[in-house]
Amino acid sequence: MNFDSIFNSAQEAFLFYKNLPGTEKGAFLDTMADVLESHRSEIVPLAVKESNLPEGRINGELGRTTGQIRLFANLVKEGSWVEATIDPALPDRTPLPRADIRRFLTPLGPVVVFGASNFPLAFSTAGGDTISALAAGCPVIYKAHPAHPETSRKVADCIHQAILKCGLPSALFTHVEGGIAEGQALVKHPLAKAVAFTGSHAGGMALFHLANQRENPIPVYAEMGSVNPIFTFPHKLEKENQALAKAFISSLTLGVGQFCTNPGLIFVPEAQAKAFENAVAAELKDIAVAPMLHPGIAQAYYDSIQFLESREELRWVKVADPKHLINGSTAMAEIKAADWLKDTLFQKEVFGAFAMMVVYQSEDELLEIAQHLHGQLTITVWAEAEELQNQLFLVNLLEEKCGRLLFKGVPTGVEVGYAMQHGGPFPSTTAPNSTSVGAHAIKRFARPIAFQDMPQELLPDALRDGNPLGIWRMVNGNLEK
Amino acid sequence: MNFDSIFNSAQEAFLFYKNLPGTEKGAFLDTMADVLESHRSEIVPLAVKESNLPEGRINGELGRTTGQIRLFANLVKEGSWVEATIDPALPDRTPLPRADIRRFLTPLGPVVVFGASNFPLAFSTAGGDTISALAAGCPVIYKAHPAHPETSRKVADCIHQAILKCGLPSALFTHVEGGIAEGQALVKHPLAKAVAFTGSHAGGMALFHLANQRENPIPVYAEMGSVNPIFTFPHKLEKENQALAKAFISSLTLGVGQFCTNPGLIFVPEAQAKAFENAVAAELKDIAVAPMLHPGIAQAYYDSIQFLESREELRWVKVADPKHLINGSTAMAEIKAADWLKDTLFQKEVFGAFAMMVVYQSEDELLEIAQHLHGQLTITVWAEAEELQNQLFLVNLLEEKCGRLLFKGVPTGVEVGYAMQHGGPFPSTTAPNSTSVGAHAIKRFARPIAFQDMPQELLPDALRDGNPLGIWRMVNGNLEK
Repeated sequence: MNFDSIFNSAQEAFLFYKNLPGTEKGAFLDTMADVLESHRSEIVPLAVKESNLPEGRINGELGRTTGQIRLFANLVKEGSWVEATIDPALPDRTPLPRADIRRFLTPLGPVVVFGASNFPLAFSTAGGDTISALAAGCPVIYKAHPAHPETSRKVADCIHQAILKCGLPSALFTHVEGGIAEGQALVKHPLAKAVAFTGSHAGGMALFHLANQRENPIPVYAEMGSVNPIFTFPHKLEKENQALAKAFISSLTLGVGQFCTNPGLIFVPEAQAKAFENAVAAELKDIAVAPMLHPGIAQAYYDSIQFLESREELRWVKVADPKHLINGSTAMAEIKAADWLKDTLFQKEVFGAFAMMVVYQSEDELLEIAQHLHGQLTITVWAEAEELQNQLFLVNLLEEKCGRLLFKGVPTGVEVGYAMQHGGPFPSTTAPNSTSVGAHAIKRFARPIAFQDMPQELLPDALRDGNPLGIWRMVNGNLEK
Repeated sequence: MNFDSIFNSAQEAFLFYKNLPGTEKGAFLDTMADVLESHRSEIVPLAVKESNLPEGRINGELGRTTGQIRLFANLVKEGSWVEATIDPALPDRTPLPRADIRRFLTPLGPVVVFGASNFPLAFSTAGGDTISALAAGCPVIYKAHPAHPETSRKVADCIHQAILKCGLPSALFTHVEGGIAEGQALVKHPLAKAVAFTGSHAGGMALFHLANQRENPIPVYAEMGSVNPIFTFPHKLEKENQALAKAFISSLTLGVGQFCTNPGLIFVPEAQAKAFENAVAAELKDIAVAPMLHPGIAQAYYDSIQFLESREELRWVKVADPKHLINGSTAMAEIKAADWLKDTLFQKEVFGAFAMMVVYQSEDELLEIAQHLHGQLTITVWAEAEELQNQLFLVNLLEEKCGRLLFKGVPTGVEVGYAMQHGGPFPSTTAPNSTSVGAHAIKRFARPIAFQDMPQELLPDALRDGNPLGIWRMVNGNLEK
């Protein structure tokens, strides 16, 4: 397994591609979105077959995929994302003159992207990681997820059609199939400059440690999921018991619970617990079993549930029913907060439609919970306005534990926009200062460089006098266009 | 050695301090700069005594220190650094409404800062790392450098005077003395959220690996120095032989060569090598020996030189003369590019006034050198405008290898401004996507968080409707104020 020629070609492509104007990079991404759309009728059935996800979901996911491609296309066509910063020379400054210094974000080089099983399109071959890397100016060496090989090959074909149409080097994107050994070899290659991954904690941590032990360590942007707790308060639950139970169960069971932002943990006040449990149980009755992504995931889900069933602290509201091992059947258990606090095992993500309902007795207990809580992609607070006013300190604590804090709705259904933060403190990710969804995701694949007294004709357009790109730039500390 | 109470207090201080308005954080920093200025007559003699650096330099360094404190004070008083981004709700969007999502940068929590021996003020107790962390909203647990304990205590006193004057919690800054074991214990503490370090490669890498092996890994911003090569071209050297030799030697020997940006490597074309060597030798005659920071550094310097003297590829232009072990005596050796390319040992930094002059024969050799070169804080190109036009590909390659690329002047003397980038690809730093000098240094100590449908009264001012802080914000993808 030698990836030298792949990386050498990618590096060569990089040295050309990085200097192309944003308008050309954006046109390439737009072309890719067009090609994907025009192959919808071929892609969708493949992805449905390989993921067991319903056609409606896959159709939506393709729309989301091309939507985020166009978001990044617009971002790089507009161009201000490079954070151009200019401190002009001050030749007459005393005691020493100041040189002309200009800084912007430059792409890292070839990066390795790992596909995710639960989003065969939006977080896979032409998914957010690949696209934000290409938008930044980085060639992508893509390690296909073995759960959907045909879908992946088809999408890779579309990417190469777009590359061809735009006259770009084909090494901008390389599709690699294989297992763990291939993935490790890619991460270890000396020319790799960063790694993006969405998947399990074990997988993410293995890549993280591998990359840190390289002779030249590289960043690993691993999004490893979380349990996404919901904190509920008495008045809110009393007023909206039925609606909240419905919203919770609908979010928990969406896509058979196979989302990173799936709410696997809910904190409920003791006085309202019984009513909420009844409402939840009623909702659960209508939830049909549905096939999970692949038998391995279903097996892991039932193994985790079975393990939890041996814990006497848990009282089961609904027990999972593994009729056929590919099917995901919803499960839910109740536990006292005092017991939950005793073992961090109860914070471990069970990938699938399982939730733990933690019954708390006091606000002091809630503060203890917040302090005890591991890092999360999201935390949701369901409270009436007036009871929120008494929880400012709790909200302050919860901010430390998540990347996104919600006060309405459910954590599933991550918007792709400018303000989205999909990331969070460890162990939800290995890089809490980054996001894998939304416009800011592009920053993961760039680093700042400063040019000192560089001749105008050599400067990148983003930093030239007269602002030929018409982008936002900070000049002498002031933003201007 | 138990730092629990220090970190617990810092965490408590953090939960209060992070929510203070930028104007109050800025006022605190301004007060600190005032207190330091008012103690100049006590600080300067201590630092001179403990660093062996001349009084003029230390006086200048104190000015630089208070200057950068005021830069960060202004940055947080102005407030736009938090990158406020708002995607307002779209309740009527189909098929699904969009929630209100607002994102900004929030401080990480308590951070550990290590002082540097070569800047007893500007990169130490109240230096750039401490100040950018406090500006971001993070309490600092500061590990004093054992080379200047009295200076460090005095500056820590000034910081605490400022804390007291502003009525802030004293745990915002904690001064810790000790050795390697204490430093390691700080980095391993569960409540530590990031580490900043300026120093040796060995020291930085030890902290990097320690932090990555924590149960919850944290980022290490280690600036570990580099050899900062200068690439010279024939016409430029012919025209300015004398002036360039003078500039080079003056930069090489500034502060007895004890700068991270010290130019320890210079590439010279064969035809001009002899004349340049003569000019350099003439300059070197006037350079007096001067004491280094401390005997340990002088010892390491002479050990490295002695080791290199055993290498037959090197021809010595000036041999170091260790009359008294504390003194730094300049040394310089010449080597053929073909030999230099054979051993990466010749890229290793020798901390002190040592430079290697590498004689190249062709432009092809230069490209090979650029490819072979390790990551650097800076690279300098000395070329005439017309010969630069033939080196576009080389310049393109060099961009991949550094954080700052200069076309005039010398790499020493790092400006503290908005556009400065003091960082670079590994092994010059462990975090090429960050800078330890200049306004952007604050970003190291913050991470993004998004609030979804948060009630107005709970939102931080930076994200409220009506923009009460009057800062730059991105709303629906457009920057506005």
